[in-house]
Amino acid sequence: MAQRKLDVVLDSVKRLQRMGATSNLVNLLQKQHPADLAQLFSELSDKDRQAAFSVLVERNSRLAMEGLSELGPEKGALLLAGRSADDIVKLTQELASDDAAAIIDYLPEELSSAVLEQIQRRPAGGEVGELLEYPEQTAGRIMNPKVFALSEDMTAGEAITAVQTARDVEVVFYLYIFDSRRHLVGVASLRRLLLVPSTTPLKRIMTTDIISVRADTDQEEVARLVASYNLLAIPVVDEENKLVGVITVDDVIDVIKDEATEDVYRLAGVSGDDRVFTSPSESLRKRLPWLQVNLITAFLAASVVAIFEGTIAQWATLAVFMPVVAGMGGNAAMQTLTVIVRGIALGELTFENTRKALLKEAVVGVANGFGCGIVAALIVWVWKGNLWLGTILGAAMVINMFVAATAGTLIPLGLRALKVDPALASSVFITTLTDVFGFLSFLGLATLVLKYGGGIQ
Amino acid sequence: MAQRKLDVVLDSVKRLQRMGATSNLVNLLQKQHPADLAQLFSELSDKDRQAAFSVLVERNSRLAMEGLSELGPEKGALLLAGRSADDIVKLTQELASDDAAAIIDYLPEELSSAVLEQIQRRPAGGEVGELLEYPEQTAGRIMNPKVFALSEDMTAGEAITAVQTARDVEVVFYLYIFDSRRHLVGVASLRRLLLVPSTTPLKRIMTTDIISVRADTDQEEVARLVASYNLLAIPVVDEENKLVGVITVDDVIDVIKDEATEDVYRLAGVSGDDRVFTSPSESLRKRLPWLQVNLITAFLAASVVAIFEGTIAQWATLAVFMPVVAGMGGNAAMQTLTVIVRGIALGELTFENTRKALLKEAVVGVANGFGCGIVAALIVWVWKGNLWLGTILGAAMVINMFVAATAGTLIPLGLRALKVDPALASSVFITTLTDVFGFLSFLGLATLVLKYGGGIQ
Repeated sequence: MAQRKLDVVLDSVKRLQRMGATSNLVNLLQKQHPADLAQLFSELSDKDRQAAFSVLVERNSRLAMEGLSELGPEKGALLLAGRSADDIVKLTQELASDDAAAIIDYLPEELSSAVLEQIQRRPAGGEVGELLEYPEQTAGRIMNPKVFALSEDMTAGEAITAVQTARDVEVVFYLYIFDSRRHLVGVASLRRLLLVPSTTPLKRIMTTDIISVRADTDQEEVARLVASYNLLAIPVVDEENKLVGVITVDDVIDVIKDEATEDVYRLAGVSGDDRVFTSPSESLRKRLPWLQVNLITAFLAASVVAIFEGTIAQWATLAVFMPVVAGMGGNAAMQTLTVIVRGIALGELTFENTRKALLKEAVVGVANGFGCGIVAALIVWVWKGNLWLGTILGAAMVINMFVAATAGTLIPLGLRALKVDPALASSVFITTLTDVFGFLSFLGLATLVLKYGGGIQ
Repeated sequence: MAQRKLDVVLDSVKRLQRMGATSNLVNLLQKQHPADLAQLFSELSDKDRQAAFSVLVERNSRLAMEGLSELGPEKGALLLAGRSADDIVKLTQELASDDAAAIIDYLPEELSSAVLEQIQRRPAGGEVGELLEYPEQTAGRIMNPKVFALSEDMTAGEAITAVQTARDVEVVFYLYIFDSRRHLVGVASLRRLLLVPSTTPLKRIMTTDIISVRADTDQEEVARLVASYNLLAIPVVDEENKLVGVITVDDVIDVIKDEATEDVYRLAGVSGDDRVFTSPSESLRKRLPWLQVNLITAFLAASVVAIFEGTIAQWATLAVFMPVVAGMGGNAAMQTLTVIVRGIALGELTFENTRKALLKEAVVGVANGFGCGIVAALIVWVWKGNLWLGTILGAAMVINMFVAATAGTLIPLGLRALKVDPALASSVFITTLTDVFGFLSFLGLATLVLKYGGGIQ
């Protein structure tokens, strides 16, 4: 729905809530698409969201749960957390098993176990539990175990009848085909079925060059495959190549968004599940240790300055320009780091072309160093009337930007070689490095000039 | 294809290239999926990639061009840039108009105009040109103008026949339906056609609650709609609601990836189209102006230090700890900034809940300040044996982290209110701010202590 139309509905929802006009409210909510419902929920205050969900769930529990699911598992779980385990078991049955599993996983520990225990006692309730047994961030965790598959011995006509009578299956656009031992052997499109005589067996028309993933495949690899082969869904098989589920492209889109967030977060030293409305105490628990690690690295930079304390005592103006050389190095390093980390994530940077990338960044780094160093030198000359000081600052900048460019390239590439996420070469470590080299070059050069250059000030 | 299998093929390609075994090479390349071909191309050196493309294009120009297109328009255009306009016109006809248009747009200026001119002279060659007339980053630019649509007066049986005989249409999973004036009025799935008697008119079975976009809709909005409604494709209409094209989910995935890259880049002050293998001179042209803007802001921080030059001359040890207070403020600000910017991008942060977010970040900021400030104070006390200095540093850190948290929240939110991309509140500006406040509080407190505290050292 367009934002403007949604705003109108939102205003009505708020008005009806204020008036306590529950039945009108339910009628309005009932008309919404689950995605719009989720958008409405997210614009309401916590209390109003809970109230709106409660009235809707009484009347139309499927729609209410679909809207809740579209909010994402974390926020969805929050809306359910006040309910009894019995209630949650009943409500999550309105959802596909993968969506139900994701939400149950986010419930408070105790409630989550109680719900799972009850679900597993039910007939056919095992699916949700099984999904949660796959490791996080794997194909098994995000797949839908209800998958539409047919035997290779069926005819096209029989397959069409099967499609017509199929129920409870997400969407049928690929027909997966198995052999007599239930191994996944092929795929056909619904359109293909319509193009052949109805007596043609599926094994004659299926594509056997099928792209599938194992249940333990990392979800990032799943997303890469779906994106690069332009698939609408990808089948998931077990170690014997038996079909166990399917992952549709809409779930892949969620993965791509999450992985992008993860990259951005790691570059800034934030934990992946620290969101805008994570509670303050939890955010603190996630961020403080990281900052304290960086406190140690910051003292590393400080100890470099300490070496030159005598120089600064003689020439206090140096302290004025310390932040300039360190800060500019940090900025240049962040630029290189971002381009390299994103290049790795998008698969543009391979081991083959590393040397070329390094060379390029080094050239750009030195050129940026001259481009900024000369301007900085001129500013200092005009401001402080001291050409020596300007020259030292400019030279230190060239050195530091060269260090920034090479470190910004090599550190993430090195981390990848060690099979560590390159985004962890976060701004924080790189900027410590540029602080250290910035101070070393700037204060080092100044010390030399003081010693050999004679009366400077 | 799995990475391991791809590596084997890559080795063979390289070996065959070294041996000059062209016909074996072509046979091997012919067997690849376009996406694998693109992956192979991207792992080869520039020269080998060009050579592999050249031999394949002779034998199977469609596959070669599909592989080239999967490389992305920028790299794809590079592979074509050495050819004549005639040649390029012929080759791009192997692709869907949207893919062709994207590649032509990335060709060198002169070549691009020559190609376009020739294309528009051909019968039915207008499509590519028309696509390029839509503004960048809009639905019109990424849609496929070949869209499968039927009249609402057709019957289900006729529609099935139409599907069977349709050619040159990307994929048919939604049937778009128009009325007598060719206005888009509904949609039906192929499966739905199979569920009704063949004489049923489409207007009786179509869904009229159809989600479409205008050709001038921003591509980010298109991606948001496709993702939130879990669509496989979205129809594009003109201002009269006539169908002009369709955008499929695979194109939306590309948009989502690009937009995520854009966010990461902007946070680091890098231009969106600066990639790993952009030429050094172009990268320099994109990064240097930004760095020079930041040079000015760095001198702002320097001028704050200059105010306290007298203090530093008296007490040079202060210069040692300046980077600690500034750096930690910068790190804390980056954490807040990232969470907020990503929260805005993912739609979690609305105007409604801004106050709550600000309060949370402020609380976390002050708590982080105490958590780091106390540790820092103890380190300084032990290292320099000076409790006053430790206290000043700790207090300055609390102040600066509070500033970091509030500025990291308010600046991106303010930018959004001004309809500017919040990611532009990049690390660079925020860290300048934390530099300024860090130095002000640290050196300011030190000056007060020097003045009123008596013999400190």
